[in-house]
Amino acid sequence: MNLQAPVPPANRPPRIEVIGVTGMPEITEGDRLGGMIVSAAEGQGTPVETDDLLVVTQKIVSKAEGRTVDLDDVEPSESAQKLAEETGRDPRMVELVLRESRAIVKTDSRRGIIVTETKHGFVCANAGIDTSNVPGDGIVSLLPERPDESAARIREQVSEELPGVTVAVIISDTFGRPWREGHVNFAIGVAGINPIKDYRGTPDAYGEILRVTSIAVADELASVGELVSAKAIGVPVAIVRGYGYEQGPDGVGALLRHRSMDLFR
Amino acid sequence: MNLQAPVPPANRPPRIEVIGVTGMPEITEGDRLGGMIVSAAEGQGTPVETDDLLVVTQKIVSKAEGRTVDLDDVEPSESAQKLAEETGRDPRMVELVLRESRAIVKTDSRRGIIVTETKHGFVCANAGIDTSNVPGDGIVSLLPERPDESAARIREQVSEELPGVTVAVIISDTFGRPWREGHVNFAIGVAGINPIKDYRGTPDAYGEILRVTSIAVADELASVGELVSAKAIGVPVAIVRGYGYEQGPDGVGALLRHRSMDLFR
Repeated sequence: MNLQAPVPPANRPPRIEVIGVTGMPEITEGDRLGGMIVSAAEGQGTPVETDDLLVVTQKIVSKAEGRTVDLDDVEPSESAQKLAEETGRDPRMVELVLRESRAIVKTDSRRGIIVTETKHGFVCANAGIDTSNVPGDGIVSLLPERPDESAARIREQVSEELPGVTVAVIISDTFGRPWREGHVNFAIGVAGINPIKDYRGTPDAYGEILRVTSIAVADELASVGELVSAKAIGVPVAIVRGYGYEQGPDGVGALLRHRSMDLFR
Repeated sequence: MNLQAPVPPANRPPRIEVIGVTGMPEITEGDRLGGMIVSAAEGQGTPVETDDLLVVTQKIVSKAEGRTVDLDDVEPSESAQKLAEETGRDPRMVELVLRESRAIVKTDSRRGIIVTETKHGFVCANAGIDTSNVPGDGIVSLLPERPDESAARIREQVSEELPGVTVAVIISDTFGRPWREGHVNFAIGVAGINPIKDYRGTPDAYGEILRVTSIAVADELASVGELVSAKAIGVPVAIVRGYGYEQGPDGVGALLRHRSMDLFR
């Protein structure tokens, strides 16, 4: 039996509730997201409670932090122009991708794909820069500069708004994966929850020691959020209730495999 | 606004419930899992309802299908012995990995890692063969031979047990990922639900057409299941309730990127 997660008695099965937060207003630079989430959740009759975990989609965080760029203001460098030509992409967009990245991981000229390692250490297409769900023609959103701090800030704002209430916050974004079709949501910022649940060294159901498994629960929770927040339907935040997360050390760093340990770059 | 998923009115936020199914007995070959899940859910006061989605962990499916092997009965081939020597692994285990695979994707001799493409088309370590949570020394579990059929069978058994009740079923397994630390659960078998939700061509919140995004909801749902089923705590099944899945074409095939389209093998 796992010491961290004792089996609930048969009459109390483990249960998690995931609630989409609707009714958030259009987000603009400087908005205090924590407060707005608390109000919107209250307004729909599902107030934020202590030990809730909030999954907040990247787009509203970037907007609140002014991380949007008008492509018309971008002057592509020579290397951006070269890569843009190779991949058939907008040179201004490629310029932003290069600025936001510390390494190019892979490009596919035929399909116009540029996979990079962002300055944060995320490996994803286009450095996470996105043209959807941003108001205005030619306006794109960049990832938050320090998503762990963004998550911590929202977490603090919630506690300021609701004294005595402590939550965890995950900022999520939608990335593709090698080998699998379809995108899923990943954690890009983590506050108040250990993003990894480590089963190594704990006995399995037959008393054998589990040697390999540590679970990226923050990524799984980001995916859970996506199922209610979904694209383009005005639900940018999910409340996950009843998941007994471990408060432990937070930050997204524990989820990022070091280059030297990675077989696929 | 998305046509497939209209925004619920503000007073009815989207809501998903995830319930772990406890009290399943030890599974042995020939067990009729659908019936056992229905009984266990009933026994804990959360009977299976129509439109529920069941996430069933691979291990109990493999056990019910007799997909366990005693390593003592395995005769390693010459190529298995060679690869075992290179990677410092048990030659009998390597023999099974090779038998279950159609291609080796990557090996790391220093850390004893063998990533293959299984006969089903999954790219994962050790062809999904697992030594944990299997009773008996030297007994390992192989992936189900045809996980889509396993899922369909469980789905039918539930409807036989509960006439008029239709559910969807996802068989899940825990895989690692490139670039990220920690494992998450992926869908390896899918019945009664379209594993992909395609937003391409639908307008975003600002009326711009979303061009890229299709979401691997079956993988996200597998991850949701993991959060309540967890390792080694006797909760091999999760009921996901309230997620309005699309019944569409099922099967895990839509989640598997064809080799020719994959930048990372």
